[in-house]
Amino acid sequence: MRIAVDMLGGDYAPDELVRGVAQALIGGDFTAEELLLVGPQDIISAQLSELGVTESPEIIHTTDVIEGHEKPIEGMRSKPEASILKAVAACSEGLAGGIVAFGNTGAAVAASTIGLGLLPGVRRPGIAVTLVGANGKFVLLDAGANPIAKSEHLFHYALMGAAFSRDMHQHVNPNIGLLNIGGESSKGSPLLQDVYKLLADSDLNFIGNVEGNQLFSGTADVLVTDGFVGNMVLKVVEGFGERVIQVGHEQGYDHQMRDVVRQLLGVSDFSEAGGANLLGVNGVVLIGHGRSKASSVLPALEAVRADIKAGVNQHIVDSLQAHAQNS
Amino acid sequence: MRIAVDMLGGDYAPDELVRGVAQALIGGDFTAEELLLVGPQDIISAQLSELGVTESPEIIHTTDVIEGHEKPIEGMRSKPEASILKAVAACSEGLAGGIVAFGNTGAAVAASTIGLGLLPGVRRPGIAVTLVGANGKFVLLDAGANPIAKSEHLFHYALMGAAFSRDMHQHVNPNIGLLNIGGESSKGSPLLQDVYKLLADSDLNFIGNVEGNQLFSGTADVLVTDGFVGNMVLKVVEGFGERVIQVGHEQGYDHQMRDVVRQLLGVSDFSEAGGANLLGVNGVVLIGHGRSKASSVLPALEAVRADIKAGVNQHIVDSLQAHAQNS
Repeated sequence: MRIAVDMLGGDYAPDELVRGVAQALIGGDFTAEELLLVGPQDIISAQLSELGVTESPEIIHTTDVIEGHEKPIEGMRSKPEASILKAVAACSEGLAGGIVAFGNTGAAVAASTIGLGLLPGVRRPGIAVTLVGANGKFVLLDAGANPIAKSEHLFHYALMGAAFSRDMHQHVNPNIGLLNIGGESSKGSPLLQDVYKLLADSDLNFIGNVEGNQLFSGTADVLVTDGFVGNMVLKVVEGFGERVIQVGHEQGYDHQMRDVVRQLLGVSDFSEAGGANLLGVNGVVLIGHGRSKASSVLPALEAVRADIKAGVNQHIVDSLQAHAQNS
Repeated sequence: MRIAVDMLGGDYAPDELVRGVAQALIGGDFTAEELLLVGPQDIISAQLSELGVTESPEIIHTTDVIEGHEKPIEGMRSKPEASILKAVAACSEGLAGGIVAFGNTGAAVAASTIGLGLLPGVRRPGIAVTLVGANGKFVLLDAGANPIAKSEHLFHYALMGAAFSRDMHQHVNPNIGLLNIGGESSKGSPLLQDVYKLLADSDLNFIGNVEGNQLFSGTADVLVTDGFVGNMVLKVVEGFGERVIQVGHEQGYDHQMRDVVRQLLGVSDFSEAGGANLLGVNGVVLIGHGRSKASSVLPALEAVRADIKAGVNQHIVDSLQAHAQNS
């Protein structure tokens, strides 16, 4: 099954993305038949050829893109030929089994939700970000698709995150934590108290509330939160990491600091997993960081391929069905 | 005006706090008359004497403490002699002009709110944490006093934070930012959109929404958020900082990493400012980190003294009155 790549999304498109595709074809184990590029045909063809790619993947031509600063819905209305819309269309028509999108996150979420539809039982998609803590990979969701979530949405995020964690992070019975500002079930908003109860009554391996200082301590394999808090937390970590590097530079510890922070910042620019997974839509959609360069392309493609191979979406559907029958 | 110190609060009480008081009296410029210690009289006296303190501050005797894990209101009911309650009582009776509290944060907030009352015009107190970004000190509030805030509360936090920033951080016309997940006024919940409008219509130097990755970039001098998000952000930064040190240790960069992170972690254990300021109550209350050791005592005392001397509370009252008349 081919993977569609939006070659116009992100701060360094298309040049860095073309370089990344070339690396995936030459250094990685992807073949031209496995990719479907969406972007300016002439430019991509010429650059790929220059980079030594002898057989180019198929290219769906477009020069329109929804820029990072544009409002997703407005961009979708005014630019029907936008690269993300064409990539989603290719997926919904069966020409591709997954999408890699480095552009406007809101546009990728909206276009995928409308164009691919939601999996049976899912009410809202969620962005699942893979981070690395003291106990290896864990997933935080939602990182921004659904800022004003209902308790059912958060419960579904736990089910989706658990399926993802089993398939993609090899956690057989993942620890599920609810991100909150205290350990007791009475902490946080009435909504979070509801979610606590839903999780405690389920057959998930729910370990209770997890506080912010435990995020990277390896306590939970799946951390559930709404899209406002998830997005905030992710961006705060990103900014703090940048500040760590900056202070290190000022103190003359450039080399050491970059060495150490690479592992932690790799986290927040998503390069560890190649991107964040949009869970709940009827397709495999990987949302890369807007600042991604060539080196992010291969891990993104590998993540989509692994997701498709593992059948994460089918496992999400199965899990939601089983819990709907039990409740 | 004396400063009351709860000598039983926090993980290392009373030993480390006694050591800290001794340092403030011997190395610092505090006199015995300026302090009022609340805790076990015999132990404190003996330890101070052992540490070379010839003239002990007055001690209000108690051995009861509301522990960190106790629910604030239950602890206050079951332990009427608790150290935090005695410290607050001393303040409300005019025996002290401020309080330093290293113990249970919720208990310090509740005891101060009930025992001291709120400043005229204030509806909810807020915890103001001083952090250090690329542009020096800035204040984030609320860091946990009021997790489910209304728009009026957040607007008042902006006014209180601005007064605090002017008096304590010497920002003449501080930049006020609203912590949100996007720059546009339409971002976030309807509540945040309301607050955005209130701030834009005020005479505060409102710079708009500030995203999490800009927290440490020096963009805003005062960052307004609700107690849920503020507490989460603060704890996430703390945990991430710990993880940075841990990874540095694993990679053999122990010395350099501690050097660099001290400045940033100093931030999250509040040692930069000695603690977080509870704004809005009719008194000066500094809430220290539960993990504070001796070295946190002197900066905490200095912060309370500076706050009293600057008249932050009077400036808060003036600011709220002026805005109430204009609206």
